[in-house]
Amino acid sequence: MTVEFISVGTEILLGNIVNTNAAYLSEQCAALGLSCYHQSVVGDNEERLEEAVRQALSRSDILILSGGLGPTKDDLTKEVVAKVFGKELYEDTHTKERIEAYFKRVRSEQVTPNNWKQAMVPEGAKVVDNHNGTAPGLIMEEDGKTAILLPGPPNEIKPMFERDIAPYLNRLQPEGIYSKMVKICSIGESKAETMVADLMDAQTNPTIAPYAKTGEVHFRVTAKAASPKEAKKLFAPLMDELFGRFGDKIYTTEEEVTLEAAIVSLLEDDKMTLTTAESCTGGLLAGRIMNVAGASNVYREGYITYSNDAKERLLGVKRETLMQYGAVSAQTAEEMARGAAKAAGADAALSVTGIAGPAGGTPEKPVGLVYVGCYVKGHVRVEEFHFTGNRDKNREFAVARALTLLREELIGRK
Amino acid sequence: MTVEFISVGTEILLGNIVNTNAAYLSEQCAALGLSCYHQSVVGDNEERLEEAVRQALSRSDILILSGGLGPTKDDLTKEVVAKVFGKELYEDTHTKERIEAYFKRVRSEQVTPNNWKQAMVPEGAKVVDNHNGTAPGLIMEEDGKTAILLPGPPNEIKPMFERDIAPYLNRLQPEGIYSKMVKICSIGESKAETMVADLMDAQTNPTIAPYAKTGEVHFRVTAKAASPKEAKKLFAPLMDELFGRFGDKIYTTEEEVTLEAAIVSLLEDDKMTLTTAESCTGGLLAGRIMNVAGASNVYREGYITYSNDAKERLLGVKRETLMQYGAVSAQTAEEMARGAAKAAGADAALSVTGIAGPAGGTPEKPVGLVYVGCYVKGHVRVEEFHFTGNRDKNREFAVARALTLLREELIGRK
Repeated sequence: MTVEFISVGTEILLGNIVNTNAAYLSEQCAALGLSCYHQSVVGDNEERLEEAVRQALSRSDILILSGGLGPTKDDLTKEVVAKVFGKELYEDTHTKERIEAYFKRVRSEQVTPNNWKQAMVPEGAKVVDNHNGTAPGLIMEEDGKTAILLPGPPNEIKPMFERDIAPYLNRLQPEGIYSKMVKICSIGESKAETMVADLMDAQTNPTIAPYAKTGEVHFRVTAKAASPKEAKKLFAPLMDELFGRFGDKIYTTEEEVTLEAAIVSLLEDDKMTLTTAESCTGGLLAGRIMNVAGASNVYREGYITYSNDAKERLLGVKRETLMQYGAVSAQTAEEMARGAAKAAGADAALSVTGIAGPAGGTPEKPVGLVYVGCYVKGHVRVEEFHFTGNRDKNREFAVARALTLLREELIGRK
Repeated sequence: MTVEFISVGTEILLGNIVNTNAAYLSEQCAALGLSCYHQSVVGDNEERLEEAVRQALSRSDILILSGGLGPTKDDLTKEVVAKVFGKELYEDTHTKERIEAYFKRVRSEQVTPNNWKQAMVPEGAKVVDNHNGTAPGLIMEEDGKTAILLPGPPNEIKPMFERDIAPYLNRLQPEGIYSKMVKICSIGESKAETMVADLMDAQTNPTIAPYAKTGEVHFRVTAKAASPKEAKKLFAPLMDELFGRFGDKIYTTEEEVTLEAAIVSLLEDDKMTLTTAESCTGGLLAGRIMNVAGASNVYREGYITYSNDAKERLLGVKRETLMQYGAVSAQTAEEMARGAAKAAGADAALSVTGIAGPAGGTPEKPVGLVYVGCYVKGHVRVEEFHFTGNRDKNREFAVARALTLLREELIGRK
């Protein structure tokens, strides 16, 4: 079955916002086994929207629209799709009551007359309750075609899709789709893709598709099957092949698990604590670790040590080391890691010192030179990196490499 | 003049990557005064790409395509557009030499036969050198229509657009476009938009368009004029109006200046240093400050103090305070700010303590409750917030509010 996406909103045409909904919806639909050949953006203009809707329905089985369900006069999606389907709009009492309740609960204010527009529903449409906003989702079916209208805000569209739309789309198809996300670290993207090139060329069911991620390699493995049991049988040979080739470089096969979450798990299993001492990454590494709900079980405190003085006072880095080798050196990275572990009383510590750029580079120590130190229960390993991106990219890569290094050391101890 | 964008790439249709090129190009083109009514995504398929190109040229003056200029057999953009324009491809010596030089310089390896495909150029096309990759950009003009072909990778397309494409597009138009980005903090989005509603309704030249940004409000002011001098005259009344209404809540009118950069400037002007003590934001606040190249002039060290013990040991927060009011309280936020300033020997300090979620909330202290403390030369101000997003959003908002608070205190001292 084919699906097509239309994102409605002049703010997208003006580049005011990045169209993350399109990426989210297309990834979800690909995981559901739907084929997508077209995506487009249309502004808050009735004529162009109608033209786009008609074109989409002429060439795709399912049309998903996001945006344009708000309370203003620029919000036209519902009206236009109803017109194309030849349906009248009526006021849906259930939705009207939900809007009233939402305003009481979240906004502590009166509903404005504009909002009643959002309770108007096309005849025959399935209403999908919005638990994070006022506009309901709508599913309209006619003559073998389906139009699904979803609210624009990402925090409204995602829960709605997961809860109601994905199951609906699954039921539309004869077979079920089962998907795993194989996440790999400690190997470069080119190398990893070369290692699965034969699998990708041969693929029929399950399929394997690469996903870009800074410092990691992800492969989505998708099987079409009549039941979870059959899917498991279909997955088995390909998963065995991937584990055979990548071994423990695979840190998870679950979509939602991040590298930092996998690391926090490893630390929790071993009842170990972690600290960080950052220079050029200035808090981004700690920030990633603290993304993990429950990181507080393993991470208690951390240090941002930009100046030499801070490295000495907070981490006990020796002045002689800083004078002889400089702040950006393997020796300093090692002392930062040891010193942080001692100061925090932690079992493990990560340190990062480098030159993110754009300024600060010299011929001996150019922009992009970064040292990462990893201390685990007395043993320290330091790695040297030469990044070639801009300031932001260099810091992002440094954080990814630091996390990867820690995981390698923790796995290595097992 | 109208511009339309086609992003070429099956990986976008699959949702493997977010289409940041479309957002970048549309924002740049809007700033250049071009009108955009259509954006679409097409996969690496010759038939559908040709259909999309023909449709775009039939309704828009300028078509910009990104992606599909690589060396593989899936890269078809050039071949398809050449076909639509009725042009043959020939091998461009200049481009071939640049590709050879690029491989020597950046990859230290031999060019593969595939890459010669990238030296093929349609007859009559303007070749735009790529300084960050192998595929040149191409500009093709015929019968009043223009097609611009750009490489897919963001780090290649952006420098090329800024250097060569934006000036080209400017020259295509009779008038020049001049643009300022008015960035405002310390006021909510709804309120700010209400305050300029009359200006937006009345707008002709210059125009004013809102941009979404966490914790800030941005307005792009764009004037069409024959010269910079005339543009300045056109801007003056609207800018006076905006400054009259928003006053010193406007922190910059330059596109590239971020709130953190504006703050670092204020600190540098006053020869002041800054430190941070973060609990739930775990390094993200320090990370934003360290985004600013040259932040090291004002920021030397910072603290991540997740546990009560860390707050006591690193910042000198009193145990009695933690026992009586809890870690998430105005009192603790104040002591964290004072203690950080003292420990780092800094003139200013920001502290953040709160419950980002999803766990950790209680009826008295629910998820989203965050206190931000701001110390400036002896004086501390604490603000209480109740955020309603998910963990990531709550932390993002906390960081934005902390920066805003610091700016208010620094401006207030002037």
